[in-house]
Amino acid sequence: MEAPQHEERRTQVRGAKFRALVLDATIARIAEAGIDHVRFADVADKAGVHEASLYRRWKTVPRLLIDALLTRTQAEVPIPDTGSVRRDLKMFTTDLARFAQTPIGTALIRFTVASDNAPDIESSRREFWMQRLSAAEEIIERGKKRGEVDPGADARLVVLTLGGLIHLHVTHLGTGIPTTLPGQAVALILPGITPS
Amino acid sequence: MEAPQHEERRTQVRGAKFRALVLDATIARIAEAGIDHVRFADVADKAGVHEASLYRRWKTVPRLLIDALLTRTQAEVPIPDTGSVRRDLKMFTTDLARFAQTPIGTALIRFTVASDNAPDIESSRREFWMQRLSAAEEIIERGKKRGEVDPGADARLVVLTLGGLIHLHVTHLGTGIPTTLPGQAVALILPGITPS
Repeated sequence: MEAPQHEERRTQVRGAKFRALVLDATIARIAEAGIDHVRFADVADKAGVHEASLYRRWKTVPRLLIDALLTRTQAEVPIPDTGSVRRDLKMFTTDLARFAQTPIGTALIRFTVASDNAPDIESSRREFWMQRLSAAEEIIERGKKRGEVDPGADARLVVLTLGGLIHLHVTHLGTGIPTTLPGQAVALILPGITPS
Repeated sequence: MEAPQHEERRTQVRGAKFRALVLDATIARIAEAGIDHVRFADVADKAGVHEASLYRRWKTVPRLLIDALLTRTQAEVPIPDTGSVRRDLKMFTTDLARFAQTPIGTALIRFTVASDNAPDIESSRREFWMQRLSAAEEIIERGKKRGEVDPGADARLVVLTLGGLIHLHVTHLGTGIPTTLPGQAVALILPGITPS
């Protein structure tokens, strides 16, 4: 009678709950130790799971890092699809600014700064960025299909410009981001991508 | 006969040449050790001058850091004044992109990332940024006077947007900056500040 129940609980912990526990522990370790000092053993300790189960599921630390960073960022800064480019860009930039100013968001931004990381960490960092950029570029691509955005507009440039502005506040200015900034930034850029 | 000559040489070395030697050594130490690990003793060693002369001239390390960072950045990324906002912004962004990709420029950008620096270092970092921003904003303010730029345009927002885009490439993308990027970025933003 005991064995199946125990087995059932283990199955549960190896599913969505196991993944969430481990990804949360990974984010916490990035914030504590820096992205180039995350080890399976420390994450396993923090999550209260066996280290071997991390090896089985993610194989390498960089794969775990990407999964954790993408999952957290997608949850905190979703890519909106409201039917209006202006509204989508403003929501995206506002969410990014809010997340960037939370302790975990600031830590992620500062600890994902490119540096002399090991090559596998560097490639994880880049994969994270490429996935996030491509997702956000959809806002512009959908605007092109609706005729709101000039077909020649550079979607990546728009996303990098808004993202760079928010990141700069966190990485270099070290000051709060004014709540009016996202709206002003979108208003600055929109005329440059509106069909003439 | 010896004494006056020697005195004359010392005076020279305590003037412009002394300052240049020390500032170069300071930049080199920032790049080597990080901005929060620069000490008068190491800078003096590297510059081949007496540590006491650094105390006399700059009083504190943060004051030396600001002087070195501002001097180097002003030399590498001057604020142009060609009579055209488009040309000024493109030159400024192009110079910034070029400098950001030199080893010393990359080091400066990465090592001036806000972090848990000592309070006096943090205030130096901020003073550096405020001085650079104010200088670059002149491009926009001059454009307003010439009627090229909408009087309501936010000069700081324009400078932060262009600067953020360049910085993001160095801090987070870790990729080369395409040579076409400065021109495209300026073209993206100009319609948003042009008088309607």
